[in-house]
Amino acid sequence: MKNFADKLMEAVREKGNPICVGLDPRLDKIPMFLKKRVLEEGDFTPTRAAAEVLLAFNKGIIDAVYDIVPAVKPQIAFYEIFGADGVWAYQETLKYAKSKGLITIADAKRNDIGSTAEAYAQAFLGELSIFEDEDEVVMPIFDADAITVNAYLGWDGVKPFVQEARKYGKGLFVLAKTSNPSSGDIQDLLMQDGNSVYEIMGGLIDSWGAEDIGECGFNFVGAVVGATYPSQAVKLRHLMPNSLFLVPGYGAQGGSAEDVRPCFNEDGEGAIINSSRGIIFAYENSDDYTPLQYAEAARDACLKMKEDLAKVL
Amino acid sequence: MKNFADKLMEAVREKGNPICVGLDPRLDKIPMFLKKRVLEEGDFTPTRAAAEVLLAFNKGIIDAVYDIVPAVKPQIAFYEIFGADGVWAYQETLKYAKSKGLITIADAKRNDIGSTAEAYAQAFLGELSIFEDEDEVVMPIFDADAITVNAYLGWDGVKPFVQEARKYGKGLFVLAKTSNPSSGDIQDLLMQDGNSVYEIMGGLIDSWGAEDIGECGFNFVGAVVGATYPSQAVKLRHLMPNSLFLVPGYGAQGGSAEDVRPCFNEDGEGAIINSSRGIIFAYENSDDYTPLQYAEAARDACLKMKEDLAKVL
Repeated sequence: MKNFADKLMEAVREKGNPICVGLDPRLDKIPMFLKKRVLEEGDFTPTRAAAEVLLAFNKGIIDAVYDIVPAVKPQIAFYEIFGADGVWAYQETLKYAKSKGLITIADAKRNDIGSTAEAYAQAFLGELSIFEDEDEVVMPIFDADAITVNAYLGWDGVKPFVQEARKYGKGLFVLAKTSNPSSGDIQDLLMQDGNSVYEIMGGLIDSWGAEDIGECGFNFVGAVVGATYPSQAVKLRHLMPNSLFLVPGYGAQGGSAEDVRPCFNEDGEGAIINSSRGIIFAYENSDDYTPLQYAEAARDACLKMKEDLAKVL
Repeated sequence: MKNFADKLMEAVREKGNPICVGLDPRLDKIPMFLKKRVLEEGDFTPTRAAAEVLLAFNKGIIDAVYDIVPAVKPQIAFYEIFGADGVWAYQETLKYAKSKGLITIADAKRNDIGSTAEAYAQAFLGELSIFEDEDEVVMPIFDADAITVNAYLGWDGVKPFVQEARKYGKGLFVLAKTSNPSSGDIQDLLMQDGNSVYEIMGGLIDSWGAEDIGECGFNFVGAVVGATYPSQAVKLRHLMPNSLFLVPGYGAQGGSAEDVRPCFNEDGEGAIINSSRGIIFAYENSDDYTPLQYAEAARDACLKMKEDLAKVL
């Protein structure tokens, strides 16, 4: 089975850019015409109507970008906010993106003790065996290619994700240094040996993937490293030469192309740069588009981002 | 509006014990008669059938214990494993527990950057305004009384939960020292000042709730402290005299009544002790019950746990 890192790097080479489109839809920013269309289509409950709108919006974005970017990363909070109906839209979004050949990263930051993490790992990366005793059915649930994981609980909470990923040729990205302003509260704490918590985390992540380095030189246990902290990224890239970096924080959060450069290795490989709002709601930031053209605006934003990143790669 | 801590401590006093029943159903451990009943009832998809079984199982447990325990804590991973259908069962479980007067704690360990954490906080603790522009509907989604949160991302990822909790008289429990074997990987790292990461986290949690101390002496920003680490609990209780402790790890994970004693203050207040497998699957651990009596076994297990805890309180 092909290593997840090989799959992702192959997709990056094929599309000629390392862009990950963050599918983080917010109902109040979705063009009116999509809402009207859904509300006219059927007699939905409010949460199901909202879920249908998210899905329609996402399909428009995916159709507009699938041939030019390697990956998408739907953030599950923006779906869970509508409960079970939202989670349905999340599953359908992953399925649709996969059908278009995109690598899918479930941004869920799941974490728990081992026996519980097993359930998350199975749900997001693996297959489920339902009614084992009789009427057995084996099926995938979310079937993402990778998931983001928070490792505050340590190795035994991460192990089930690593095992499931290995079994199905999938991957995970563990939070090392996150892009938000307060990420230092815990992550920058200094240890007695002079290292910060995020560096210790980086070392652990590196060790968790050490056995499974793919042909591309990277393994399937990657790290989340925020574009907003370039000097920390320099340290982490040095510490974890074989780890893929998933990099949030470019664009709307303030990270520039120069800021994300250290997340790549010398050859300009090994990182994938996410942009969410800056792409999917690009139509709001320019006088050139009507809301009807939101998908076209997203495509143009990807092409512009590709050009921007190309300057440093 | 009543402070969450006051509500919880009132419920503990009323029921005469600090037990939280962990509703962590596993399909392969649920009695056959419930599966047969659901499969005969309707022509469900496999995941919907599984979700119906979880809900039926939970209702049996809730009916058997709601008059003798103050709280329940469904762990969302065991529902998410069935995708949107599982999340439906999760919402229905919370609703049913609430209708029986139980305090509900959504064990979801959610975490993200501020703008994303807002979505989680609204979904789990608050109300949602759907289609604000026209056809506006305002409704709660999960409507739990409290949620567990992982604060590896620092204050700005926790703030939306604190704000939403304050607004609706609800609470949160932030992971400090978790019950699993590897929890020390990150949580026990020693800082330059001699403190461990879990102690720094404890100090932060204490500060996040400092402004809102209820009549009971506790605030609504609690901590998760594992029963399996009693000496760390001693330090945390000393460090955070006004924080509620949610204590997993009693029973099946190895924690005893003596082990959880330090989580309470001198008056035997301020902690709630969770048991999941030890209660909900108690029927498997004794020759006294048939699977048909699983709910009765759960009730008996609660009464036994109450007696066990009473020895140290």
